[in-house]
Amino acid sequence: MTTYDYDLFVIGGGSGGVRAARVAAALGKRVGIAEEYRFGGTCVIRGCVPKKLFVYASQFPEHFEDAAGYGWTVPQARFDWATLIANKDKEIGRLEAIYKRNVEGAGGETFQTRATLIDRHTVRLESLNRTVTADQILIATGGRPAAHPALPGNEFCIVSNEAFHLAELPKAIAIEGGGYIAVEFANIFHGLGVETTLIYRGTEILSRFDMDLRTMLHETMEKKGIRILCRSLSEKVVKRADGRLDVTVTGGEVLTVDQMMLAIGRVPNTESLGLDKAGVELDKKGAIVVDAYSRTSVDNIWAVGDVTDRVQLTPVAIHEAMCFIETAFKDNPTKPDHETIATAVFSQPEIGTVGLSEDEAAKRFAELEIYRASFRPMRHTLSGRQEKMLMKLVVDGKSRKVIGAHILGPDAGEMAQLLGIPIKAGLTKDDFDRTMAVHPTAAEELVTMYKPSYRVKDGARID
Amino acid sequence: MTTYDYDLFVIGGGSGGVRAARVAAALGKRVGIAEEYRFGGTCVIRGCVPKKLFVYASQFPEHFEDAAGYGWTVPQARFDWATLIANKDKEIGRLEAIYKRNVEGAGGETFQTRATLIDRHTVRLESLNRTVTADQILIATGGRPAAHPALPGNEFCIVSNEAFHLAELPKAIAIEGGGYIAVEFANIFHGLGVETTLIYRGTEILSRFDMDLRTMLHETMEKKGIRILCRSLSEKVVKRADGRLDVTVTGGEVLTVDQMMLAIGRVPNTESLGLDKAGVELDKKGAIVVDAYSRTSVDNIWAVGDVTDRVQLTPVAIHEAMCFIETAFKDNPTKPDHETIATAVFSQPEIGTVGLSEDEAAKRFAELEIYRASFRPMRHTLSGRQEKMLMKLVVDGKSRKVIGAHILGPDAGEMAQLLGIPIKAGLTKDDFDRTMAVHPTAAEELVTMYKPSYRVKDGARID
Repeated sequence: MTTYDYDLFVIGGGSGGVRAARVAAALGKRVGIAEEYRFGGTCVIRGCVPKKLFVYASQFPEHFEDAAGYGWTVPQARFDWATLIANKDKEIGRLEAIYKRNVEGAGGETFQTRATLIDRHTVRLESLNRTVTADQILIATGGRPAAHPALPGNEFCIVSNEAFHLAELPKAIAIEGGGYIAVEFANIFHGLGVETTLIYRGTEILSRFDMDLRTMLHETMEKKGIRILCRSLSEKVVKRADGRLDVTVTGGEVLTVDQMMLAIGRVPNTESLGLDKAGVELDKKGAIVVDAYSRTSVDNIWAVGDVTDRVQLTPVAIHEAMCFIETAFKDNPTKPDHETIATAVFSQPEIGTVGLSEDEAAKRFAELEIYRASFRPMRHTLSGRQEKMLMKLVVDGKSRKVIGAHILGPDAGEMAQLLGIPIKAGLTKDDFDRTMAVHPTAAEELVTMYKPSYRVKDGARID
Repeated sequence: MTTYDYDLFVIGGGSGGVRAARVAAALGKRVGIAEEYRFGGTCVIRGCVPKKLFVYASQFPEHFEDAAGYGWTVPQARFDWATLIANKDKEIGRLEAIYKRNVEGAGGETFQTRATLIDRHTVRLESLNRTVTADQILIATGGRPAAHPALPGNEFCIVSNEAFHLAELPKAIAIEGGGYIAVEFANIFHGLGVETTLIYRGTEILSRFDMDLRTMLHETMEKKGIRILCRSLSEKVVKRADGRLDVTVTGGEVLTVDQMMLAIGRVPNTESLGLDKAGVELDKKGAIVVDAYSRTSVDNIWAVGDVTDRVQLTPVAIHEAMCFIETAFKDNPTKPDHETIATAVFSQPEIGTVGLSEDEAAKRFAELEIYRASFRPMRHTLSGRQEKMLMKLVVDGKSRKVIGAHILGPDAGEMAQLLGIPIKAGLTKDDFDRTMAVHPTAAEELVTMYKPSYRVKDGARID
């Protein structure tokens, strides 16, 4: 019997990789994990966590404004970008250390190096100039923001990675993209006082979300002062003599900005990993092809998280990692479950959503009941802020199951998380109706919409 | 056949009464409703709504402080109590008008007068000096803060009603009571800069809530600077020459304050209503006795809401009113369902709770699994605020049903509302576990606690 150095070697120290390494080590397996940049991966280092800290920072000006209606006189506040970056970096550093320590604490070995495959059982630890062998190998190298080589002047553009470390806060920024990253950063920069333009080739931001959320968020962002150009592209970016950028967009308009950020998608990190040497198959987009158990085309090599381009979310990567452990090390083959995943967009206002959009549901179900409420959150009765909250339930008319819930407004992400429980479990509108309201909350609207706002039959709306 | 002036006459224009009047009128019934003070009742006029507006007002100083860690320098803000009161009153006036209009819009008749019973079918409209008759009568006169005649100097004390209209913000206040009203006002006044002392005869604030929530809220309030005296009573209140009050508490300490607020309970409004003339029975506390359908001892007279002293919550009164309409006017006898009601306490931090506390569950179930997490909310990693969030699930070890959920922290009320759905429906811990996390949220903790923190067997904790 061949002996390997490790029972499991993990390439990539993000959420999925670290979870797998930690749990396998806790099971008594000999585990190694290599990370070329920083433990914590996209989520902790340059994604979810610093993004949400930026969101908090960018919301304070609205708090200051809202205070007036409640009797507070708040003198003009000043913002220092460098302080935010420094405090954010300190927190990220703390989390990074925890991630690393958790693996080591469970008995795993961590390596600060890029790692590549030599063959299906051999990993090269590049900066250590050393190879190790492993029985099972897990690829969890994640993804990165897509580049845009076709755009003249793309070398002057930044992606989200750099947005977390800009030397100074721009006075004006253009952001290309209409996905959640583009939208979140547009709100962050605008909230911090940056003149912000969003450029998106599609007809409406946030494709695949419920159309009601998309249009109401779009309108609210514009009311706040964010410029949104849909059906538009940047055609070239030129660096001016004064160091600023001229961005020419569809139609010829030139935007003069300090930064141009591309948020046009993400690509899996699979280049130069030696996957070809090991025989691991990739799809057309360069993502690792896996079966329902996260196993690649090579039976001792597995992949989880963004590198597989299934659902690019931290909790999904962690769930895939947990299922991988069950399958590979606990003799309990377990398929990750990608159905009915609640998600949030930390736009301002926030989006929380779970299940099917109305349009998607209309394609799959003959009869729908749509319950929809739009109202001013109580907080804004005194703040005077003209921002509405939207709540919408999509119900299958036959089974009465709630198959979609869509929220725009404060705490929508928290609400989506908890709506995920009944919707995943297949509860019905009657179960919602039987629940007593908690007053005064915003969420009580979700259990007190007793009559459908309208119905949809065979894809067509009936009022 | 006798003809009455009305099919339904409602006495009391609060949440329960107005709902019943509006819905009955919409069914085509001839409906009258009398309110002696202001339509909207406790909830709208001097309860839930103005209270929550005060909570918002009182939270701004923490927002201003929290901003520093995010790079904001906020100069000292000034607070003007009169502005808050005026803006609050304007909003309450707006809501009051909506309540009245809703009844009238549905075809009901509103009377601005105290109304009393002459007999089981006759109502006297006091200030109009007129009587009307009705087939069915609904008593929905609510409750009011209890007085404290045994306390020497109680005439110098205020109750929550006056707290909404103080001519000026006190510099120091003492609040007697340990229920949610006392606790909420203690946080409100403290947040607005008032030196606040809570005096409570019990061993810990908020009896009947989960003990973990109670002790952690107590500690957090004390850390903020609220003084809490448990096992204490005020023994006398003396007005000083300078107009301030000297409150002597158990043990002899004298607190000098500008206001002393009593929040020692609420009593039903049943005096001088003519209930005796109609033959309506009261219990020992003066609450109207009703059967499971909200019917009093007189078969055409009904009662809903706080006046019945079942569960004193706005949504419960509304639910009882809706059930009354089904029973009395739609030939569909329907009992209000008082089981598993989620509630919030708008303390700071907030409490959200649904189902059984650990202690209560331990009495009823042989085996419990307790899942408990205490952590710093992400927002406070940068704000530096030393305030922890608590989340706790109580699970029946046999059925795996989640029978209690208890949250202390931001948005706990919104969370409790939505946790109410799965818990009311009897979902299990496995249903929670199957739900994908939404990251980064606080609520994700509720679906990612995979291992019990401890178990309870036959009432005793097993670690």
